[in-house]
Amino acid sequence: MPKVSAEHREGRRRQILEGCRRAFGRYGYEGATVPQLEAETGLSRGAIFSYFPSKLDLFLALAEEDQLRIGTMWLEQGFEAVIRHVGEDPEWIGLYLDVPRMLRADEELRTRWNSFNPEVRERLTRRFEELQAGGELRNDLTLNTLGRFLGVVLDGLAVQQGSRFGIDVDGTIELVRSALAPK
Amino acid sequence: MPKVSAEHREGRRRQILEGCRRAFGRYGYEGATVPQLEAETGLSRGAIFSYFPSKLDLFLALAEEDQLRIGTMWLEQGFEAVIRHVGEDPEWIGLYLDVPRMLRADEELRTRWNSFNPEVRERLTRRFEELQAGGELRNDLTLNTLGRFLGVVLDGLAVQQGSRFGIDVDGTIELVRSALAPK
Repeated sequence: MPKVSAEHREGRRRQILEGCRRAFGRYGYEGATVPQLEAETGLSRGAIFSYFPSKLDLFLALAEEDQLRIGTMWLEQGFEAVIRHVGEDPEWIGLYLDVPRMLRADEELRTRWNSFNPEVRERLTRRFEELQAGGELRNDLTLNTLGRFLGVVLDGLAVQQGSRFGIDVDGTIELVRSALAPK
Repeated sequence: MPKVSAEHREGRRRQILEGCRRAFGRYGYEGATVPQLEAETGLSRGAIFSYFPSKLDLFLALAEEDQLRIGTMWLEQGFEAVIRHVGEDPEWIGLYLDVPRMLRADEELRTRWNSFNPEVRERLTRRFEELQAGGELRNDLTLNTLGRFLGVVLDGLAVQQGSRFGIDVDGTIELVRSALAPK
């Protein structure tokens, strides 16, 4: 293997991820073929799969990046900012339309999916605990129940936006606020 | 064409729908091939497509039936019963995992999807108006906003249940109740 700098490798890795993001967004995970991944990245399959062992690993690397970005947005700007972001019809939503069927068929994938970005998950849990302790978030339900509800709302918004029905950003924010308000 | 009774035709129609429901549930809409539809219905493609002009029409007939059943449950037993029903992991959820990608690609399909079962939609709207007028449902937001929110929650629950993560039935019911309560 020729010597390449860490910088060069990181540039290649980004080139692969961004090209594959476009291909998955356009054709879906199942629909995107290796020739399409080659066309969108401008690289050969040999080059692509020297960075990622499989198409699934490539896809999961993109998913983990997206979850990190959304989790960080949530921490820094609140859940309302995440709802607004989904309402802007981000291109990445198209990547996730095949995911429920993939998860349905694969228990190991469900485990991997739920273990992305442990640090951000931990920080969100601590944030929720602080909000409950400070009386800003209802504390008659467990954090698990509240977190799962917000996940349901986010998945439902992604379905509506992904289906090109659009979403009611301000109405959703108001209703989520009421759902979570201390009693 | 041989003379067949209306009863016979209805029996055949049900046989086709139930067989195709199994095939779509197992393989997805895209994944289900015509030979699989034949195997599950026990009928030839000629017989199947003399009742439904296309695979898409078949699928939409199933979707309209399911929406009618859920809408009727909602009217007769309330939204909480619908949440409980999704929590029982109904087999029909597997049919809908491909729908967002189908809708995303096809504006005409989005229009058809939103015009199923107009009578049930109209009855649900009247019910909501009554609940608002009677002070049982918040009236500081429009019916459209409330209805779209419940649709988002239902889609999100279907994603979670369809992905085999399960859902928190009681927690969701409590949070939806708080979201909709009069201020």
